[in-house]
Amino acid sequence: MKLKYGIIGTGALGGFYGGMLAHAGNDVHFLFHRDYDFVCKNGLKVDSVLGDFILENVNAYNDTKEMPKCDVVLVCLKTTNNNKLKELLPPLLHSKTIVILVQNGLNIERDLSVSFPNLSIAGALAFICSNKKSPGHVVHLDYGKITIGEFQNVDQNILNQICSDFNKAKIPAEISPNLKESRWKKLVWNIPYNGLCVVLNTTTEKLMGNPKTYILVRDLMFEVIRAAEACGVHIDKGFVQKMLDSTRLMKPYAPSMKLDFDFKRPLEIHAIYSAPLEEAKKNGFDMAKVNMLEKELFFIQNSYL
Amino acid sequence: MKLKYGIIGTGALGGFYGGMLAHAGNDVHFLFHRDYDFVCKNGLKVDSVLGDFILENVNAYNDTKEMPKCDVVLVCLKTTNNNKLKELLPPLLHSKTIVILVQNGLNIERDLSVSFPNLSIAGALAFICSNKKSPGHVVHLDYGKITIGEFQNVDQNILNQICSDFNKAKIPAEISPNLKESRWKKLVWNIPYNGLCVVLNTTTEKLMGNPKTYILVRDLMFEVIRAAEACGVHIDKGFVQKMLDSTRLMKPYAPSMKLDFDFKRPLEIHAIYSAPLEEAKKNGFDMAKVNMLEKELFFIQNSYL
Repeated sequence: MKLKYGIIGTGALGGFYGGMLAHAGNDVHFLFHRDYDFVCKNGLKVDSVLGDFILENVNAYNDTKEMPKCDVVLVCLKTTNNNKLKELLPPLLHSKTIVILVQNGLNIERDLSVSFPNLSIAGALAFICSNKKSPGHVVHLDYGKITIGEFQNVDQNILNQICSDFNKAKIPAEISPNLKESRWKKLVWNIPYNGLCVVLNTTTEKLMGNPKTYILVRDLMFEVIRAAEACGVHIDKGFVQKMLDSTRLMKPYAPSMKLDFDFKRPLEIHAIYSAPLEEAKKNGFDMAKVNMLEKELFFIQNSYL
Repeated sequence: MKLKYGIIGTGALGGFYGGMLAHAGNDVHFLFHRDYDFVCKNGLKVDSVLGDFILENVNAYNDTKEMPKCDVVLVCLKTTNNNKLKELLPPLLHSKTIVILVQNGLNIERDLSVSFPNLSIAGALAFICSNKKSPGHVVHLDYGKITIGEFQNVDQNILNQICSDFNKAKIPAEISPNLKESRWKKLVWNIPYNGLCVVLNTTTEKLMGNPKTYILVRDLMFEVIRAAEACGVHIDKGFVQKMLDSTRLMKPYAPSMKLDFDFKRPLEIHAIYSAPLEEAKKNGFDMAKVNMLEKELFFIQNSYL
């Protein structure tokens, strides 16, 4: 059986993952917003370290009501738009559709399940450097692995087939046996780098090159690990050094929140900061530094939004 | 006996306090740096809510070796210049000279006493809004009280006379029975407002007007109070609300560190952040948020110095 894919939010992530799947011959249907007219006329351009291509004749839509029912829906929106899912998703759903939130942050699947209690829901972590350069033009700079984990009612066979489709499309994909753990591990990176790059208006490279902020990044990572522990997720302390080292080896890269800040878009403060803070607090742990970072980010966002 | 005053560092603080003392008829000798020629020619201009005046025929110097021995030396430099005191002070000292550090931060008297173990040393806290507007021109916007406390070898009679001289010059002055407590109390204000105004490039007014940073300021204040407690200084919790309320009533005002940042001068990170952090740590208390603020400030300072 060939799976029908729906991509909700065709930006840096959706454009790349959906584009790669379509380029490999999968049946992919894309929801566009501002780029709709441009893509209908010019196609979707993907510049990737894996090879550049232009996808002509894109199955492009600007309204989910026009889209077919899909077997797999990849939600690649910013979490700041997740309040729209209640309206966007229903036209795409049949009784076995799996919805995968390819997003950062914590408890976003839980929030979705409140509106869709019986839906098959998974979460995915994208380990990728990619940006949307201009309308209908995505640039993939480095990495690309996607990790998918069940939240509720997921058919393992479909999950396996999705991974297989990704792999055939040259995207390393794996199944996480523990979505909660995967999300916390991603936060170990996201929390320090996203926030500090915005607050200090800088890059990961400069944060790592300054001995004071190097320590601050490390301390924030340890704080996240202690919070995860309080929430029942054990992450080995050695993971911190691994993250620090791999970030130092990364090409200079602006985290997604820094790009949102530069383009004066809403920041994903709730999913990446407030939700983990709340979860940790509920379990008796106060992330003092993360709390401060959250409040600094709210102040900064408030100054332009 | 009439006291001879020396002012080391004639900026927003030294220009105002020294100017007021001289204007009231005291014998005051001022060390200038860049403003020396200007003041010799034009005098020292003080615009104050207490009344404007120009001090003609200022006892101005650009080298302490030219200055007379003084009974009282008011050090009104930024603490970032305290490494120069070892050279600046000796020409001004006779056997009973009292040196008063009119500066912010912690343990600055202790650091001075390392070079001058027998010197009479006091510390002073200035509760004042004043700025240097241009060469030889100081603007006093609000408040003005000075609190002076003994560090070592201080003659109480001289201290009383200094307070009396200040009072006659229309400056409320009082003696603190506990310099360490006074310094920690000042930090309760200085630590949140100075740092956050720099990191978030804003004013005290905007920090107080945003509900997220209002909470952050309050949390930082409580953290400082807990650190003080660990260091043996009890500050009543009600002091926090008093500080928050009085800051809200203040005229919009940029803390001194914000001005230093705006003019790309060194920031007083060591005296206001590192020294209290070190003192608290030595006493078993980790100021998590203050630690983060310190590191953010080092990063920011490093980006322009």
